Amino acid sequence: MSFIETKPDSDFSIHNIPFGIISTPQNPAPRVASRIGDFAIDLSALAQAGLFASILEDAQGVFSQPTLNSFMSLGKPVWSATRKHIQKLFSSSGPSLHDNKELLERAVHPISSVKTHLPANIGDYTDFYASKEHATNVGIMFRGKENALMPNWTHLPVGYHGRASSVVVSGTELKRPNGQRVLVKGEAPQFGPSVRVDCELEMAFLVGTGNNLGDSINVNDAKDHMFGVVLMNDWSARDIQAWEYVPLGPFLGKNFGTTISAWVVTMDALEPFLVNGPTQDPKPLPYLAENGPSAYDINLEIKVKPVEGTKYTTISRSNLKYMYWSFAQQLAHHTVNGCNMRTGDLCGSGTISGPTEDSFGSMLELTWSGAKEIQLEEGITRKFLQDNDEMILAGYCEKDGIRIGFGECHGKILPANK
Amino acid sequence: MSFIETKPDSDFSIHNIPFGIISTPQNPAPRVASRIGDFAIDLSALAQAGLFASILEDAQGVFSQPTLNSFMSLGKPVWSATRKHIQKLFSSSGPSLHDNKELLERAVHPISSVKTHLPANIGDYTDFYASKEHATNVGIMFRGKENALMPNWTHLPVGYHGRASSVVVSGTELKRPNGQRVLVKGEAPQFGPSVRVDCELEMAFLVGTGNNLGDSINVNDAKDHMFGVVLMNDWSARDIQAWEYVPLGPFLGKNFGTTISAWVVTMDALEPFLVNGPTQDPKPLPYLAENGPSAYDINLEIKVKPVEGTKYTTISRSNLKYMYWSFAQQLAHHTVNGCNMRTGDLCGSGTISGPTEDSFGSMLELTWSGAKEIQLEEGITRKFLQDNDEMILAGYCEKDGIRIGFGECHGKILPANK
Ligand SMILES: [Ca+2]
Ligand SMILES: [Ca+2]
Ligand SMILES: [Mg+2]
Ligand SMILES: [Mg+2]
Ligand code: NI
Repeated sequence: MSFIETKPDSDFSIHNIPFGIISTPQNPAPRVASRIGDFAIDLSALAQAGLFASILEDAQGVFSQPTLNSFMSLGKPVWSATRKHIQKLFSSSGPSLHDNKELLERAVHPISSVKTHLPANIGDYTDFYASKEHATNVGIMFRGKENALMPNWTHLPVGYHGRASSVVVSGTELKRPNGQRVLVKGEAPQFGPSVRVDCELEMAFLVGTGNNLGDSINVNDAKDHMFGVVLMNDWSARDIQAWEYVPLGPFLGKNFGTTISAWVVTMDALEPFLVNGPTQDPKPLPYLAENGPSAYDINLEIKVKPVEGTKYTTISRSNLKYMYWSFAQQLAHHTVNGCNMRTGDLCGSGTISGPTEDSFGSMLELTWSGAKEIQLEEGITRKFLQDNDEMILAGYCEKDGIRIGFGECHGKILPANK
Repeated sequence: MSFIETKPDSDFSIHNIPFGIISTPQNPAPRVASRIGDFAIDLSALAQAGLFASILEDAQGVFSQPTLNSFMSLGKPVWSATRKHIQKLFSSSGPSLHDNKELLERAVHPISSVKTHLPANIGDYTDFYASKEHATNVGIMFRGKENALMPNWTHLPVGYHGRASSVVVSGTELKRPNGQRVLVKGEAPQFGPSVRVDCELEMAFLVGTGNNLGDSINVNDAKDHMFGVVLMNDWSARDIQAWEYVPLGPFLGKNFGTTISAWVVTMDALEPFLVNGPTQDPKPLPYLAENGPSAYDINLEIKVKPVEGTKYTTISRSNLKYMYWSFAQQLAHHTVNGCNMRTGDLCGSGTISGPTEDSFGSMLELTWSGAKEIQLEEGITRKFLQDNDEMILAGYCEKDGIRIGFGECHGKILPANK
């Protein structure tokens, strides 16, 4: 327990201790922070007071950076020690910061008074396609039942390169993209605003320490290279995507924006929630074979607030444990050819759809490509997102009375440029 | 003419004045340079002597950076003025640096004594697919004659996101990638070294100044956002690619390495070589419609030195002017949905294949997927690259006795990891 009180349903009890980047009105320089309950903890202020001297040689330099990259590059032993140290500093028992009112004043800020920033300088962003339910659903809609799941899908974690420049932090508003789309099947494409703006419910890991070009990361070491996990909304313009994606994959249908949550939850915090993933058949090739469980039991949710409504409706409940290919398998596969990962690289899971219709991770699947409507509260319906609609992705794990959550991944779709 | 003598067939007469990054044995810090003939010109040394005071406020700061990004972010008027100023400083007529022996000693280095580095910090790398001949050839081989050119191809410049981390500078040796590939059609994939390592003959532009997320770059302004052009070898493991690429595009078959030439040739230097590109039918949508010519007449070449041979053989001669979608159309398309480009982003043309068999830009096409052999000198043949084979891409323009070239884009394929 912490002397900073947290509600039982808080995502950020002292068991979590995520990392992120904040700025405050008094100090607009983005810097490294953690979070407990409804308070952000300015780690650069704590470092300035010398509180990390036992763990980090240059704590002040590392924690006054505008991204987590410097901290992440220091490696897993430092991440683990830092998180434990913060837990001790804010513990309700034993010697802690409790009585240092002056420092607490400087370092602890109500979350409503801070601005959060993109946690990392993301060198490369890759998106996988690792939910079998999602790949099957989309495959049926885009290519028909016979070609739904490609022959390669059960042999390797299919993935593609995304656009790093347009990854934004939760709360960022995005314009509806313009582009080419075919409005009447078989006719020429027309130019205009996408009429099928959709979400994809994903999680993503941030690479903490990478590998040199030409080397690989072993699947059973992979988790130690990961710094932590965030929620990710891979916004998708389905009409633009459907027209452009053959044969080289998604491009403008995706790269107008991808939103991640602000607080990076560490692999250490998630470790108690490791479970076995789906049975893999055929048996993966040796370079993808794992010792022990590596799926995570994380409840996920999509909530929509339509522009004409007053509240959010949950439109899907899924779970990361449905993901067929684990994060560790994704990282091992990504590097098996010698591709180099760098500190700050972002790897998305792909849309996490569960086995039932109410657990599908995109409006494309929930409406079965627009054939059905999604019922929202107050009698409102949606097939895809309208201008000024808002969306929140949320996620948490819970076990033995301990809850670890991810906060929210919020976005709003603004009208397209004229 | 410059007082630094250049041979008539030099790629780097005073008419070129490209930009790159060098280090020297005496000063291992990478910094900004230009090149005339067989000499690198250390611009940070010239800046230190105050020679750019009239053009750049902080020339020394900008030119002592380890990438061109700071310089590129300053915009086209600064790039143009800087290039002209360097031409004046090294001119053989009028007041120039000719007699400042002490400064020339410090700033001018024989090219054999300098190390070149990756010219930019590349935030995102995109590869287009803009040669109709290449798209048709590959389409026939991968999908058959009926599905060769997808319906979208003549409506938009198809492109996909590549991997920025593994873009390397000319001269870097790359290991043959391991990965999954299907050795016998219809059977399960096996893990091992790619047996079809190939090149792709490409050029690429570097974004000098970008756009904010949500904004677009007009097709007729696009050239002013480009800093310059390099040669690019988009190394491709065809067996890995063929197995993995459906439905989300190339991934591990490409991201083990992409090589670019070290000297960035500016759009100003290339302007005299503008020509009309291929006729576009159907007429592009208005956002892709250009006023005036925007193809470049640049001769291109692939040369191979097989491990058991002693010399290079030219295996293909092509020309950038064959490219169907111009660089300007590529940049306008890339941003039409609001996708933000940043200083240093790299956009590849896609393989530049010409209309005849001896102008195809990949071994895949030259051997028609391994059905034919490529004849090299000394009685040696190749279908794809063997371990320790070396390859050079080269390119130059020539008009009215003026030649502007790109140097070489060199690579060597080392044996795979065991
Ligand atoms: Ca996705
Ligand atoms: Ca290519
Ligand atoms: Mg996206
Ligand atoms: Mg490549
Ligand atoms: Ni001359």
